[in-house]
Amino acid sequence: MKRKIRMGMVGGGPGAFIGEVHRMAARLDGIIELVCGAFSSDPDKNRAAGKALFLPGERCYATFDEMFEKESSLPEDERMDFVSITTPNHLHFPIAMKALQAGFHVVCEKPMTLTVEEAETLAKEVERTGLIFCLTHNYTAYPMSRVAKRMVRNGDLGEIRRIMVEYPQGWLADAVTPDNIQGSWRTNPKTSGISCCMGDIGSHSENLAEFISGLKITELCANIKSFVPGRTLDDDGDVLLKFDNGAIGSLTASQIAVGEENALKIRIYGTKAAIEWNQQDPESLIVKYNDRPIQVMRRNWAGVGAEWSRIPAGHPEGFLEAFGNIYRDLAMAIDARLEGVEYESEFPTVQDGLRGVRFIHAVVASQGQWVKL
Amino acid sequence: MKRKIRMGMVGGGPGAFIGEVHRMAARLDGIIELVCGAFSSDPDKNRAAGKALFLPGERCYATFDEMFEKESSLPEDERMDFVSITTPNHLHFPIAMKALQAGFHVVCEKPMTLTVEEAETLAKEVERTGLIFCLTHNYTAYPMSRVAKRMVRNGDLGEIRRIMVEYPQGWLADAVTPDNIQGSWRTNPKTSGISCCMGDIGSHSENLAEFISGLKITELCANIKSFVPGRTLDDDGDVLLKFDNGAIGSLTASQIAVGEENALKIRIYGTKAAIEWNQQDPESLIVKYNDRPIQVMRRNWAGVGAEWSRIPAGHPEGFLEAFGNIYRDLAMAIDARLEGVEYESEFPTVQDGLRGVRFIHAVVASQGQWVKL
Amino acid sequence: MKRKIRMGMVGGGPGAFIGEVHRMAARLDGIIELVCGAFSSDPDKNRAAGKALFLPGERCYATFDEMFEKESSLPEDERMDFVSITTPNHLHFPIAMKALQAGFHVVCEKPMTLTVEEAETLAKEVERTGLIFCLTHNYTAYPMSRVAKRMVRNGDLGEIRRIMVEYPQGWLADAVTPDNIQGSWRTNPKTSGISCCMGDIGSHSENLAEFISGLKITELCANIKSFVPGRTLDDDGDVLLKFDNGAIGSLTASQIAVGEENALKIRIYGTKAAIEWNQQDPESLIVKYNDRPIQVMRRNWAGVGAEWSRIPAGHPEGFLEAFGNIYRDLAMAIDARLEGVEYESEFPTVQDGLRGVRFIHAVVASQGQWVKL
Amino acid sequence: MKRKIRMGMVGGGPGAFIGEVHRMAARLDGIIELVCGAFSSDPDKNRAAGKALFLPGERCYATFDEMFEKESSLPEDERMDFVSITTPNHLHFPIAMKALQAGFHVVCEKPMTLTVEEAETLAKEVERTGLIFCLTHNYTAYPMSRVAKRMVRNGDLGEIRRIMVEYPQGWLADAVTPDNIQGSWRTNPKTSGISCCMGDIGSHSENLAEFISGLKITELCANIKSFVPGRTLDDDGDVLLKFDNGAIGSLTASQIAVGEENALKIRIYGTKAAIEWNQQDPESLIVKYNDRPIQVMRRNWAGVGAEWSRIPAGHPEGFLEAFGNIYRDLAMAIDARLEGVEYESEFPTVQDGLRGVRFIHAVVASQGQWVKL
Repeated sequence: MKRKIRMGMVGGGPGAFIGEVHRMAARLDGIIELVCGAFSSDPDKNRAAGKALFLPGERCYATFDEMFEKESSLPEDERMDFVSITTPNHLHFPIAMKALQAGFHVVCEKPMTLTVEEAETLAKEVERTGLIFCLTHNYTAYPMSRVAKRMVRNGDLGEIRRIMVEYPQGWLADAVTPDNIQGSWRTNPKTSGISCCMGDIGSHSENLAEFISGLKITELCANIKSFVPGRTLDDDGDVLLKFDNGAIGSLTASQIAVGEENALKIRIYGTKAAIEWNQQDPESLIVKYNDRPIQVMRRNWAGVGAEWSRIPAGHPEGFLEAFGNIYRDLAMAIDARLEGVEYESEFPTVQDGLRGVRFIHAVVASQGQWVKL
Repeated sequence: MKRKIRMGMVGGGPGAFIGEVHRMAARLDGIIELVCGAFSSDPDKNRAAGKALFLPGERCYATFDEMFEKESSLPEDERMDFVSITTPNHLHFPIAMKALQAGFHVVCEKPMTLTVEEAETLAKEVERTGLIFCLTHNYTAYPMSRVAKRMVRNGDLGEIRRIMVEYPQGWLADAVTPDNIQGSWRTNPKTSGISCCMGDIGSHSENLAEFISGLKITELCANIKSFVPGRTLDDDGDVLLKFDNGAIGSLTASQIAVGEENALKIRIYGTKAAIEWNQQDPESLIVKYNDRPIQVMRRNWAGVGAEWSRIPAGHPEGFLEAFGNIYRDLAMAIDARLEGVEYESEFPTVQDGLRGVRFIHAVVASQGQWVKL
Repeated sequence: MKRKIRMGMVGGGPGAFIGEVHRMAARLDGIIELVCGAFSSDPDKNRAAGKALFLPGERCYATFDEMFEKESSLPEDERMDFVSITTPNHLHFPIAMKALQAGFHVVCEKPMTLTVEEAETLAKEVERTGLIFCLTHNYTAYPMSRVAKRMVRNGDLGEIRRIMVEYPQGWLADAVTPDNIQGSWRTNPKTSGISCCMGDIGSHSENLAEFISGLKITELCANIKSFVPGRTLDDDGDVLLKFDNGAIGSLTASQIAVGEENALKIRIYGTKAAIEWNQQDPESLIVKYNDRPIQVMRRNWAGVGAEWSRIPAGHPEGFLEAFGNIYRDLAMAIDARLEGVEYESEFPTVQDGLRGVRFIHAVVASQGQWVKL
Repeated sequence: MKRKIRMGMVGGGPGAFIGEVHRMAARLDGIIELVCGAFSSDPDKNRAAGKALFLPGERCYATFDEMFEKESSLPEDERMDFVSITTPNHLHFPIAMKALQAGFHVVCEKPMTLTVEEAETLAKEVERTGLIFCLTHNYTAYPMSRVAKRMVRNGDLGEIRRIMVEYPQGWLADAVTPDNIQGSWRTNPKTSGISCCMGDIGSHSENLAEFISGLKITELCANIKSFVPGRTLDDDGDVLLKFDNGAIGSLTASQIAVGEENALKIRIYGTKAAIEWNQQDPESLIVKYNDRPIQVMRRNWAGVGAEWSRIPAGHPEGFLEAFGNIYRDLAMAIDARLEGVEYESEFPTVQDGLRGVRFIHAVVASQGQWVKL
């Protein structure tokens, strides 16, 4: 790399959770620098964010429109290379479209858009512009979820028969108070879209299941519910799944599962072996057999997943390192563009985003009946 | 107790798994003695079993009919008090009916009968005779599953919202060879009934979920499948659940989940707390809260579950001790009858058996649609 | 087996812990029957015990002397085959000597005797009489501790370099109240001998380490302490170890480790692999390598330890089953004597007992200096 | 903060492990920027490192002497604020002394120096200059090890009686090949000092035990050994410990514990409660009681350790975040100096370093005898 890749940001002002995650992930390897942002629609908060991030005042923009316009007009060796969109869901689409039209590569949070139509439009715009679009389904970037994918692809599990993915959280078990910024917009249809729980973490589950297994969900039957009085969007649900190779399984997502932190877990059973990966214990990948003892593969031990590791086994890596893998991959992809060379990236794409939006809409449409995906 | 309680047995000859489990469980506390049996329809095997069990030849009967007849004619201080039925499923009903009609208390394996009609008939016969009928849903007899039930009943979890129960096994992942006696009859509709996986372990899961939660499943939607070529009965499936208080959840049972031993696990989420219990780690009950650290309750530590324990905490009890709790409870119930005193037993009853058979039939009838239970 | 093996018992009256453990273990397989006992020096307790165990009054003896005398005079097809000694430590020696002299096989609790001289005398008496002497170092009878031993013997670990064994318990963290029968005699030098903690569980640790590794401790340096005010015997300590092949390691035993149940754990590191076994999770044996993923071997899965198992993998076996393995083995050894055939038993012997007593005395003598064992 | 804190670095060139760890940790929060370095004594490697880190050529210095000289002469708003020393052990002392004398704050790897005399000299120089000196005993910077310390200080454990700390690794189980840069200098007395294993990870263990417990080791008795043929320094050992309040315990460190990654674990037992923390599962702190269920405290759940957390519970933080806590703390301490305000830092100091060097020398001097510390 000849220079650091330059990042701009929309969203991620004071009080946001995921904005600072993106920034820490982007900083980790020292190959990306944040050069500008439109962090909040509140001018004071926006300025405060910019100052805390040591940005020059003139690159802390009032709106994303202004940001794209001004950055476009900067000399090539100054202006941002890509923008990270870390706003509530309803803004992903308009910002991403504008960014692409202004010629910037895009990193976007999920769910990608509010509607399937938006998602399709965005996918077309990505194709039209040829720009890089990276969706932060970050759980696919853990070393051990990637090792899992590779094992499936290598045939180590035989033919897949059963997939179980679950994502219980407890943080929305009670009514949200106004000071809970994230809880407020996630439970609000205007900012969150047609689903809260399935949109937020159901889509992560769907994505991870398809990512590791290499299979596609063809049909689903969902039972979703809103438990907290006054809440209009789902906060809990189970989904029966059928996959394109004949495998079956289930997906559970909940935000009212009291006591659960962020317990994303996936199990895939094949004819020869099974794998189990738990995001809260991400350094281990458990492999089970009928005819052999259990194997616990550990990140960066005996070479496993070394290519996605930063530090030795037993020195725990976690959420930020996985997120950082997406940013490192993105930076290398942009660098390859700058250098005019080929590069095969591993981060999720606009197609993953489109599939996720379709999944969310299918789940909501299901209402206890089987629907095709 | 003035004397040991006397046990007869049908089934459980050489090569059977569950028959010897019943015997070890019955022996554990030294208050039950095996006095007779009809262990196998094969005369050689029957004799071999009786000899290995140090039974006098004359109390090793060729058939259960003969057993009930001859035992009935013995003096009261010699004849068996109860019979344990550990045959394949299709024989539970005729044997249990005969036993009751001959005046013997009954311990019966699950699923209780092949059809709902048989189950209803049997339930009536139990009521008519007033005899004791004990169904060996043994997982309800672990100290920590009972502690879990008590916590729910005490309101420690608040209002229940979500129940997840799963029972993955891998032992039927491949086609069954003829020497696999248990596998052969379980996958055969004649001996097993309309379901293999859901009949065997799905029914355990349903029973445990209702036992601990105190709730009833009111509706279900199942997706079951037979994966192994040539197999006619289900060996895998997921079920969406609705409970009578508005809670929802899921049940998964599989016999093709490669690498899984006997991984029955239940999680129940309430408004205040959640519990998790795993049969393969039965000494711990995990309790989770949104506003407090996780608690790991341990059998017979700080008094937890002491009433169902035999030995101190940290001296692992397991499957046989839980099974033994059912037999000890049964022996005490019979002793109370002999003494003419009241006794409140905790073992599962013919009503649990009836509910289990209804559950199995509802799952098979569902075919992906919602059915009432 | 032509008949059940007949057991007598000294100790194990009401309130004792280990006596009932011996009985449950002896009952488990239905090949041993308790025929007599001298359960307590208190006549009322003795009678109560005999009655609760359904023994005829005449075989519930006032003293062990009486028991050995009377049983000796019974016809051969009635009298007990062996006696289990489950009294406090100080009585092991006189009872065992008497039993052997009266011609009975012996099962004895550990520590075997109070002094090294007694232990040597007893070992000679066992040799002289040729009778069977079985010491209940029960932790060597778990399937997975035996699998561990076999792996070491097979060379799977390479040359052993490091052994770590620890046995923390918390039950004696506070002063013992008089109603705590076991706590009272264990902390009393008259009944317990020169050591409490090292005598009780330090000796188990030493035995397990030598059992699995096949090595002998040659030198040790101990730092033991009595923490609870007024207590004269040790309740806590660490020991540095040297083994006869050059391996080193440590042994920790504590009865004041608050919150610990019965957390015996052993780790053995060789040049090629390491093993780890934890008594509170006894169904798993963890094997670690530098060049391969971790392996978790599970009891009776893929054939592991099947020869010492009663039930399938995933159906937890525990403390009583392990203890039962000792009794089953003993019964088969006695049966072989009766039949006049060879039999290779696996239970610990009088030599293990002698070694344990030597270990205890070496630890107490060490006082922070190296002593030879 | 008005500006980023400026970091220089000695060591950490290509192939080093810990240098890049320091840089990632320093980057994480975006408040520190690397401005210069002397990364390697090999000019090519030094240049390569500088280029990969996007440093201007003129601030990539050939030697640390040159670095301190040139940086000192830069204008105040350009020159580095502190230097991180990540070289092999033998260079810590001369570099740190020079840095202090040139007026730079210092971050230094452990063990701090080769000899006790050097350590004392350095401690005096820190005192004389009044500059900030931060030793990277990073394990004290995990949120849950800090929570543990606070619990002890609050008296939640009662009086401490027993401390067990262990640090098994397997990476030096075999002879080191020349391409193993870290392994080569660590096993070489010239670069590593008088100890390999105890110097590297024994000192971490000592530091963590004293940090959490708030106690001081007063006496120790060590049994250390070098297992790998041809190796002159220790690679394995156990140490008996006595603490200043009467507590006892043990410390084990090994680099030949095959299969172990970086398994630092500490257990502290008091009269009221015990705690257990395992670096490989750093998000949990286990608390045990005699009279209550086990508690598992989780980082940032129910407020636990929130002040040292970056992201929510269940989003695993690890080694780099803990290391980053040291760098964030350091940056804030330097910023406070720049602002002329008070600041209470939590990072380990030159006194921890001195204590560590004394510990290492006491262990090596012990040779199986008790020595005072």
